Amino acid sequence: MHARAAGLIVLADGKRGDIDVSAASYCQSLVGSTTTPYGSVDGLGADAFTVNPYLGIDTLDVFADGARAVGAGIFVLVRTSNPGAADLQDLQLADGGTLCERVASIVDRLAGDGELSDVGAVVGATEPAHLARMRELMPRSIFLLPGVGAQGGTVEQLAPAFAPGKAAGLVSASRSIVFASEELGGDPADAAHRAAESLRETAWGLS
Amino acid sequence: MHARAAGLIVLADGKRGDIDVSAASYCQSLVGSTTTPYGSVDGLGADAFTVNPYLGIDTLDVFADGARAVGAGIFVLVRTSNPGAADLQDLQLADGGTLCERVASIVDRLAGDGELSDVGAVVGATEPAHLARMRELMPRSIFLLPGVGAQGGTVEQLAPAFAPGKAAGLVSASRSIVFASEELGGDPADAAHRAAESLRETAWGLS
Repeated sequence: MHARAAGLIVLADGKRGDIDVSAASYCQSLVGSTTTPYGSVDGLGADAFTVNPYLGIDTLDVFADGARAVGAGIFVLVRTSNPGAADLQDLQLADGGTLCERVASIVDRLAGDGELSDVGAVVGATEPAHLARMRELMPRSIFLLPGVGAQGGTVEQLAPAFAPGKAAGLVSASRSIVFASEELGGDPADAAHRAAESLRETAWGLS
Repeated sequence: MHARAAGLIVLADGKRGDIDVSAASYCQSLVGSTTTPYGSVDGLGADAFTVNPYLGIDTLDVFADGARAVGAGIFVLVRTSNPGAADLQDLQLADGGTLCERVASIVDRLAGDGELSDVGAVVGATEPAHLARMRELMPRSIFLLPGVGAQGGTVEQLAPAFAPGKAAGLVSASRSIVFASEELGGDPADAAHRAAESLRETAWGLS
């Protein structure tokens, strides 16, 4: 609530994935409101949230429609930033391509016809080799790029995520900012501010 | 809390899936407790919870270890009960088998050496054709079998989940019990009781 009041974008990174009725309830709790016998209950008020594709397209449809109905968006986990991501996401499929490439194609089909989609994709910054292929498969989706900082990714390697269309990338860093004082020293709030500014300047150089 | 006090098993069906640090926090919130500067905060106190495998083995390891440390268990989503489950979970892999069969093999590796594992599997009751193969791949895992009732599955088709080892299945039904009065009539609590008893009697016939 404080972040929204300050004009910031709020992403609820809960990586939800569930069947239709539960997916609809997650939409209400994250971006909508619920009418109960006791009145209307506001959701978290996020601008977008992350979802897991393992349960299939019918569940992604519910998440995308529920978010769209209130002007919010979703980010589908396509290729995550953790070391084990390769276990399933990079598996080769019998009819060509990898599992995460298949998920990328599904995300692109959910994108609709505009130049810019409200269905984005989570593509880890720790494996920059994937970025160009992911951008090719999802030209209209905004990329959420976690893994910069504590997980070892660097902003300088993310250029393929920012071209050639309008859809760009959101670089996400958490621990390298929250715990910046451990490396930079000084007041924790001030160190976090300096780490965030430094990351922002590097990222601007890409776009 | 009321359910545990009554001696019932509590499953937190949140289908969580996240990188290591977040997975550990989910373990704390669902089955453990957290020490904060203000004291210890109890988690939900569930006996087990459901997890999503898309992020890979390193994340499943954290969930399994975190649950095991407090005597709880996990159920990994292997083949879910919704219509869209086939979109990814039934994809054929280049080196043979389907994606959900690969996940089943991973679950079995997490099971350890005992006759009965604390790493279970979610296998939808709506596709009984999968059950025999899933039991073959995961002989020591307890199956959580959602999809009976509102989603169209029936208990009579679940026999392959209950043989041949000690690991059996937990039949899960929600809407067909919660909303039983809409079909059976009468007092809602009484109708729910009758629907649950009827399901229990049918399920006992299998084991």
